[in-house]
Amino acid sequence: MIKRRRSKIVKASTVRFGAPHPIAVQSMTKVPTTDVARCLRQITKLAAAGCPIIRLAAPTSADTAALKKIVDKSPIPIIADIHFSAARAIEAIEAGVCKIRLNPGNIKDRKDILKIIAAAKAHGTAIRAGVNEASIRDLKSENVPENKRVALMLREMKKYVRFFEKQNFTNLVLSAKSADTVRTIEINRAIAENFDYPIHIGLTHAGLPQDAKVPSAIAIGTLLAEGIGDTIRVSLAADPVEEIRFGNEILRSLGLIESTTPELTVCPTCGRCKVDVIKLAKQVRKTLKGIDKPAKIAVMGCIVNGPGEAQDADLAVCAAQGKGYIYKHGKKLKVTQEAQLLKALTEEIEKL
Amino acid sequence: MIKRRRSKIVKASTVRFGAPHPIAVQSMTKVPTTDVARCLRQITKLAAAGCPIIRLAAPTSADTAALKKIVDKSPIPIIADIHFSAARAIEAIEAGVCKIRLNPGNIKDRKDILKIIAAAKAHGTAIRAGVNEASIRDLKSENVPENKRVALMLREMKKYVRFFEKQNFTNLVLSAKSADTVRTIEINRAIAENFDYPIHIGLTHAGLPQDAKVPSAIAIGTLLAEGIGDTIRVSLAADPVEEIRFGNEILRSLGLIESTTPELTVCPTCGRCKVDVIKLAKQVRKTLKGIDKPAKIAVMGCIVNGPGEAQDADLAVCAAQGKGYIYKHGKKLKVTQEAQLLKALTEEIEKL
Repeated sequence: MIKRRRSKIVKASTVRFGAPHPIAVQSMTKVPTTDVARCLRQITKLAAAGCPIIRLAAPTSADTAALKKIVDKSPIPIIADIHFSAARAIEAIEAGVCKIRLNPGNIKDRKDILKIIAAAKAHGTAIRAGVNEASIRDLKSENVPENKRVALMLREMKKYVRFFEKQNFTNLVLSAKSADTVRTIEINRAIAENFDYPIHIGLTHAGLPQDAKVPSAIAIGTLLAEGIGDTIRVSLAADPVEEIRFGNEILRSLGLIESTTPELTVCPTCGRCKVDVIKLAKQVRKTLKGIDKPAKIAVMGCIVNGPGEAQDADLAVCAAQGKGYIYKHGKKLKVTQEAQLLKALTEEIEKL
Repeated sequence: MIKRRRSKIVKASTVRFGAPHPIAVQSMTKVPTTDVARCLRQITKLAAAGCPIIRLAAPTSADTAALKKIVDKSPIPIIADIHFSAARAIEAIEAGVCKIRLNPGNIKDRKDILKIIAAAKAHGTAIRAGVNEASIRDLKSENVPENKRVALMLREMKKYVRFFEKQNFTNLVLSAKSADTVRTIEINRAIAENFDYPIHIGLTHAGLPQDAKVPSAIAIGTLLAEGIGDTIRVSLAADPVEEIRFGNEILRSLGLIESTTPELTVCPTCGRCKVDVIKLAKQVRKTLKGIDKPAKIAVMGCIVNGPGEAQDADLAVCAAQGKGYIYKHGKKLKVTQEAQLLKALTEEIEKL
């Protein structure tokens, strides 16, 4: 079991950030914020996919005006994504969003940040204060060497946090983003060690799903495995529903949420294997598709791993030469001919 | 940069396990070992995909006889996967494999293990000594509670290592396998802390690629990010070439190997985006397909992340309303009409 890092608990409408509250898998809408109906349709789909809180970009006052209507009708709480403009931040807060995302580094005037803090206090709005590697380099005219970047990001974050705390504002979620997997891990370890606030984790380095999923799984997964991370976002150049599904897959892989569908273990096969286990596994997976409850099913191809895995599974088949052994909760249930194996297993799955 | 854990260096033919030697991404053949020609064809494909050492199952003496022919002709060194039988282990060693994989727990007679050690010493063969969670439970008649399993696996491993060391045998690679992502991480952290040998990491919990890739990326990625792991295997119920590709993708994501093909960063898009960035990204990816050299290409949809990411990229496009900005090494190179953007970027990619 993963021991999650403890921090202050931050409140954003009905959502709480910080252990022991669940890790919130968030995403962003990808249609114009001004198109209220399309936004709400996308949000409804995201909520159904397991998204408890959603972020919307609000670069213009037309967007913040739309936010108000969206907040009123959305099935889940709304976060506003704000860049450059204090006016947009304040409008979003007044529109009733529960949280704003802000990179204080890209709002130049400190007085503007003071105004945002005052508005957030008045409305009970949470603020995610972000620093990202790209903006650190913007601050410096020359390039910062790789081994200094984490230290500079941390220094920047300390500056922000001190500033917020000086205003007695502690309804903060912190995030530090980098396009690099290893630096994302390092800066978040540093943030976890240095501050007492919930952490938002994600990799800036997005891409098409086939390119972006592995780096995101590794960066986010490594941090979660170390107990770090209270809300996550997987950035994919894809339908935001795919971001939510993949984020939940990461949590499930680490036992941070329970599975709600059957889980299929299949031996990778090797020279010992006398049966087409992969074909059988694909057929079993099809059979499992409609089933909406958790169960552990294993398809194994030999006696080396078979009986061991079978012990862990609710149902297991061990396919040997011409025959199939079906195990239920680790106990041998029946032996069938190879040709009858899928049918016999399907029957047992239905009985579960 | 990841600081890899230091250990003894273990020699298996031309391959060395242990930092600073490269992390070897291995796999297993999935055709009968007795079919020498098919094995060699599969091994040749695996080697071309970036596999430096390959494992073959050898459950019968016909298999170990075939191993000899395979060892002679294989483009990469051969490991034998041995279970239950000391005779097979010794035959494999005599057939000239550079390493054998052995779970000492499933060879009951200590004298048999002594014979294997003597043969391995005489032939300079390395041994991967493995313990796995399933076999721990085989040892105990009742179920071991989850929180005790890691400690029991570690105790078992200590027993094995003491036994090998008592025979002055130290050409050892250690592996501890579990079907559970979190326990895989925990037991390998414990192994890394307690022993001075290279570590083989992988998740027993295999499955079809769509189910197994994420847990494997997280378990293996987390350990590698902590500096643990000298050889890895991703177990997939799929063509072994896919295991090698995916293993290398994990290493690449963590900067543990260099990229040899272009890398495409794409902004995930949001409500700010006025252009179909995902469509453009898919077209760019197609263009990149034939290119066989490393380069960083970025496709961005707005001015918030665009210019920052562009700084990191060899070539970047920032697609705004009706127009496209092309950046080269962070400097604005040209502005085109939206319709000409792909063509202009393709031209610049070709010039790289």
